Amino acid sequence: MKLLAVGSMAYDAIETPFGKTDKILGGAASYIGLAASVMKVDVSLVTVVGEDFHREYLEMFERKNINIEGVEIVKGGKSFFWSGKYSLDLNTRDTLITEVNVLADFDPKIPPHGSESEVLLLGNLDPKVQLSVLHKMKKRPKLVILDTMNFWMNSTWDSLMKVIAETDVITINDEEARQLSREYSLIKAAKKIHAMGPKYVIIKKGEHGAILFYKDEIFALPALPLEEVFDPTGAGDAFAGGFAAYLTKTEDLSFENMKKAIVVGSAMASRTVEKFGTKSIENYTNEELKERIKQFQGLTAFESLTV
Amino acid sequence: MKLLAVGSMAYDAIETPFGKTDKILGGAASYIGLAASVMKVDVSLVTVVGEDFHREYLEMFERKNINIEGVEIVKGGKSFFWSGKYSLDLNTRDTLITEVNVLADFDPKIPPHGSESEVLLLGNLDPKVQLSVLHKMKKRPKLVILDTMNFWMNSTWDSLMKVIAETDVITINDEEARQLSREYSLIKAAKKIHAMGPKYVIIKKGEHGAILFYKDEIFALPALPLEEVFDPTGAGDAFAGGFAAYLTKTEDLSFENMKKAIVVGSAMASRTVEKFGTKSIENYTNEELKERIKQFQGLTAFESLTV
Repeated sequence: MKLLAVGSMAYDAIETPFGKTDKILGGAASYIGLAASVMKVDVSLVTVVGEDFHREYLEMFERKNINIEGVEIVKGGKSFFWSGKYSLDLNTRDTLITEVNVLADFDPKIPPHGSESEVLLLGNLDPKVQLSVLHKMKKRPKLVILDTMNFWMNSTWDSLMKVIAETDVITINDEEARQLSREYSLIKAAKKIHAMGPKYVIIKKGEHGAILFYKDEIFALPALPLEEVFDPTGAGDAFAGGFAAYLTKTEDLSFENMKKAIVVGSAMASRTVEKFGTKSIENYTNEELKERIKQFQGLTAFESLTV
Repeated sequence: MKLLAVGSMAYDAIETPFGKTDKILGGAASYIGLAASVMKVDVSLVTVVGEDFHREYLEMFERKNINIEGVEIVKGGKSFFWSGKYSLDLNTRDTLITEVNVLADFDPKIPPHGSESEVLLLGNLDPKVQLSVLHKMKKRPKLVILDTMNFWMNSTWDSLMKVIAETDVITINDEEARQLSREYSLIKAAKKIHAMGPKYVIIKKGEHGAILFYKDEIFALPALPLEEVFDPTGAGDAFAGGFAAYLTKTEDLSFENMKKAIVVGSAMASRTVEKFGTKSIENYTNEELKERIKQFQGLTAFESLTV
């Protein structure tokens, strides 16, 4: 199978208690592409950048066999720029600067190579753009995965509802699930979100792991406890990218396989936060990913018991 | 094996967003005894109550084969009374009233039946009392488990350090682990707590589950997502009680078996929060406990995978 992903490609400037960066590579599409490339999945990215976007970033994607035919470069345009500062415990962040730039008028173009992809990942982005990508596909993909965030709930509710209605899997964090459903209990929240469209609801809880809801079934995976968390930026994108890439690679869209895809997504996210920006996921080898997946198995397994 | 547990036995008056109670049965020892009785473990309680303490509570313990020889009844004394009000999301609570009463001068007496218990659970209580129980045992138990909370860190630091130093297993919540260790990362926190004495460190994270640290190994269990949480009171005590009782019953104090004991503790805690006070754990049958343990197995299991 093939994976097509849409999302931002951007410059980020990040400040955490451990340091700060100048403008570095950022954006949902970047993290998704890099996560998929660790598993050598056939992935195409759809996004837009300005003429100011570093050529070497695009070359890196090409070197990693990430298809970037769908990355539009706007002549004279400036790339999306986000700057943020994290709190001491890294659990909250303030946005310092958002320059939407070329993303404001983004009209996504589906590259020929990816136009018949079986798995479509609508990475975090304006829901109108997400919907337009879905409708431009040659045929409806076998699986449509949506990643979104509170910003879109606050600013583009109606468009968000439209794209959610056409989605098979949604990934959001626990606060966002509560905001979207107006339910505190995550079980009740998931039920309400199921009713909006997605058969599969994945709730990301950062350092507390992730939960997958499907019909009356629930799968929960703790996060890998980490000695150091350096920069949470992109963890959610890398999670979604790893999740989608594993399903694409294994060509199995069952609930049982989605559990494993959540392990892969978590193994991507836990690696991503260990360095600033895309640095650690850029250098993630397939062997290291395998090793981390083993750690998740060791972390969670217990023998059956009776009382 | 036998289990001996010390802790408060008290009246609680609880207010949650879902209702409020008059004075009902409360206290760490009550929850621990009830949890152990679900598994028919030989358990003795050490605590003190006033003459005002309802006779039917003591009769209930006896009916459930919970040994209460070690429950001192102070003539003319009043039982410990705690009243608290939970926030809307149940994640924080304010103490409205604390009347220490007979607990102020509590000099614990070890009942003959429990004096050679192999497992000792020092339930949440003044660390000076916890230490005195440990020192009054005929011989040092094979396993000493300590449950404590931030209140004792704030008010009796030195005594707490002394009892922690003689403990094999400590159970505390994530905030308390951070306070105790002055480390934000739970891995670093656990290392510092190991250095204080306990070989096993269990960090309870409420709705996010629990983590067990032992040497360089980590086991993490998510909590069972619940449709309704009614009253979190006693969940930590029931967790500790279920954990200790499972180890006592299986007579296996290995790390592998502790993983299973955490599943049992979590199955106790998840049941406890479904009704006010001790009500749901009082009526917990062994069959229902078995069923809930199966739910934990279904919740967390995934097949092995490669990428």
